[in-house]
Amino acid sequence: MTTKAIVFDAYGTLFDVQTVAVATEAAFPGHGEYITQVWRLKQLEYSWLRSLMGRYQDFRVVTGDALRYTLGTLGLPTDAAVVEPIVDAYDTLSPYSETEQALRQLGQYRLAILSNGSPNMLDALVRNSGLARYFQAVISVDAKQAFKPDPRAYELVQERLGVRPQEVMFVSSNGFDVAGARGFGFKVARIERVTPAALRQELAAAQIGPAAMYRALRSQTEMLDLAPDAVVQSLLDLPGLLGTRPDAPP
Amino acid sequence: MTTKAIVFDAYGTLFDVQTVAVATEAAFPGHGEYITQVWRLKQLEYSWLRSLMGRYQDFRVVTGDALRYTLGTLGLPTDAAVVEPIVDAYDTLSPYSETEQALRQLGQYRLAILSNGSPNMLDALVRNSGLARYFQAVISVDAKQAFKPDPRAYELVQERLGVRPQEVMFVSSNGFDVAGARGFGFKVARIERVTPAALRQELAAAQIGPAAMYRALRSQTEMLDLAPDAVVQSLLDLPGLLGTRPDAPP
Repeated sequence: MTTKAIVFDAYGTLFDVQTVAVATEAAFPGHGEYITQVWRLKQLEYSWLRSLMGRYQDFRVVTGDALRYTLGTLGLPTDAAVVEPIVDAYDTLSPYSETEQALRQLGQYRLAILSNGSPNMLDALVRNSGLARYFQAVISVDAKQAFKPDPRAYELVQERLGVRPQEVMFVSSNGFDVAGARGFGFKVARIERVTPAALRQELAAAQIGPAAMYRALRSQTEMLDLAPDAVVQSLLDLPGLLGTRPDAPP
Repeated sequence: MTTKAIVFDAYGTLFDVQTVAVATEAAFPGHGEYITQVWRLKQLEYSWLRSLMGRYQDFRVVTGDALRYTLGTLGLPTDAAVVEPIVDAYDTLSPYSETEQALRQLGQYRLAILSNGSPNMLDALVRNSGLARYFQAVISVDAKQAFKPDPRAYELVQERLGVRPQEVMFVSSNGFDVAGARGFGFKVARIERVTPAALRQELAAAQIGPAAMYRALRSQTEMLDLAPDAVVQSLLDLPGLLGTRPDAPP
């Protein structure tokens, strides 16, 4: 089946969530690494748990709740004046260094984002990054009130783009999202941002700290019986995977 | 509404999942702490993700998959001959030191377990611990093919015990389970096995390793808008909470 659309996850796939470390370290010097990692882990947990309990809440709220939990473990202040400016770092996450070049090379496809982010988070992020012009649609799961990997979230692609699941190449670095998208019926390319060898080397160090624990938990292919169709190291490997000439005009 | 039944979570509430550290350290000396913590974190993740994707799998399989993921991050062998004996450690988890005394003091209530564990895991665990006689029912979520905190899992209490949600005191040390049970309509007592002060002290240490990360992620009240009705430090605080004479005959 011909691929008609390429749909990207946002956080961790096109945009680097670790960018928030600047904000967490500036707010709480010496705690940036710990806060950044626990915050992201709890943010994902809360999205899964809320979907599972049928208690969806806007991702900006979930992100704030996860940060408040994290700051609470250290006994740090959790009032809105502290939390909200740090949460706002999600509006200005940096794209990965190769993101724009890859999007440009894939211009002959219909490109879209499908993200857990709320509409206002995604609007701000895409606008601030200067990448808005590459996407035919920026889709938030908010319309379904269910976070990925709930299958309802993935239904939005067909509803918004008019393409069938088999016509979609879904791209994510997040193992749970890879599994969810495969289970739904998309073709899936996994961006492997941390190779097994690199992770093994990191874990062989004397101390396994918060950042290593984060990568241990989040960076490898999940054992959920739903392997990706392809694993690549970078977004720039996608044109080759799809048989697209890298220099094709958009 | 009078409490008629007390329903306990098993893993982490009546039984100490950290008991498996003996098996992981014996199998892979020097890696026991890391494996134990990442394994438990992935086991819970996989239960949530499978429920969310509608791809339930027996908890013994989920537990094995989580262990294989964990061993894989270290480049260790993941064949059945290695994994299965370690997974079997779940059949002989130690009860907490106060578990039997607390169950004895609560004998005038109908006592039950509601656990993610598969029927064969729970049968073995309860039999091996010598605690079987205290329970009117040992209920596995397997009958619903959905893990906690999916509301369907909690429906089993009424179906098996014939008590309404308001007549149930649900007891768990797991924050996600506290939230799920409260959202479902049970009264909920949370066993706080790690106080905020103890966690803060642990996180103030120079190095935050895997065990500290586990406790940071799993031991505090979750920010899911579903607070427990009561927080106690030990199962032995339950009789006082319920107004039961601790020396009441069973």
